[in-house]
Amino acid sequence: MSSLRKLVDALRKLPGVGPKSAQRMAYQLLKEPRQHANELALALQIAIDRIQSCLLCNDYSEENHCDICKHPERQQHTLCVVERPSDVHALEQSQLYQGRYFVLHGKISPLDGIGPDELPLQKLKQRVQNEQIREIILAFSHSPEAQVTAYFIQELLKDYEISITQLAYGIPSGGDLELLDAVTLGFALKHRASI
Amino acid sequence: MSSLRKLVDALRKLPGVGPKSAQRMAYQLLKEPRQHANELALALQIAIDRIQSCLLCNDYSEENHCDICKHPERQQHTLCVVERPSDVHALEQSQLYQGRYFVLHGKISPLDGIGPDELPLQKLKQRVQNEQIREIILAFSHSPEAQVTAYFIQELLKDYEISITQLAYGIPSGGDLELLDAVTLGFALKHRASI
Repeated sequence: MSSLRKLVDALRKLPGVGPKSAQRMAYQLLKEPRQHANELALALQIAIDRIQSCLLCNDYSEENHCDICKHPERQQHTLCVVERPSDVHALEQSQLYQGRYFVLHGKISPLDGIGPDELPLQKLKQRVQNEQIREIILAFSHSPEAQVTAYFIQELLKDYEISITQLAYGIPSGGDLELLDAVTLGFALKHRASI
Repeated sequence: MSSLRKLVDALRKLPGVGPKSAQRMAYQLLKEPRQHANELALALQIAIDRIQSCLLCNDYSEENHCDICKHPERQQHTLCVVERPSDVHALEQSQLYQGRYFVLHGKISPLDGIGPDELPLQKLKQRVQNEQIREIILAFSHSPEAQVTAYFIQELLKDYEISITQLAYGIPSGGDLELLDAVTLGFALKHRASI
């Protein structure tokens, strides 16, 4: 297989990139003087080499502890549990959460061979104990796997006096009713609140 | 700037990739075991190192001469002149052209500081002479710069007995009339043919 073909194939595996886009990307990268191609190759290599997991929260970090875990002003007794590092990023963008995080890097999904032992649940329990956590916020997207994971976390922490909450599900901001799925509408109806 | 930020920025420069997509790509690439990230970094490095320009037609090639220039069954006296290597790929996909190519890697564009001397026009002239080219097909997208480039090529080759043609402009296959721009419709009207 040619080097060009291999590059197109590797680009095509990026999320949201189809065969035509991958082709277009490869040709743009190969355009002289190839500054962008060199820059991307270097950025990738540096990211692969330097970005590890924070020893405390499992989020991506270039040091043993990430900026949020090290930050002295973040609330110490609230922990937001998320599936992926990108969820931390999304929550930080909202600028509404002041506590700390814990990244599971997955959810319980028997069909994919991921049981509770594949997730860092014991590490979560350890943190709850060591840091006297008082509230755990489960920030999962809505799926059966997330519900199972939430259930396991509840079981895991049942001996501790903490409140476990989850994000509200409902109509998203700007969401057009007629475009929403039945499950979301069902949630919004069930959890309706007086105005 | 963090390694993650640099990776997002480098991904964002890819065509059609906005800030959200670049973020998503970076997070997917960083996901353990990082097989895809390693694969893409390697594919990029190999492409940068190995892919050069064909000495004859300027298309991308890993050897001195590209597969099309080396192919014994391609017509020898017809040359299709294109702006970019991706145009060669697009034309090859149609499987309708049996001749050879010549890639300009640009078009005359005084506003971008690209004059006739920045394009390999002398090399094109040399090929016309050495290979007894009989037809030159200009396969340019429709733009004022392409028209200027076409004019220069005509002037350059006026002493040779060759026919210079250009691709037909008109309504694309599946094109909805009401969605087409006035220039395209104008072309289609002007070059209408009896049925």
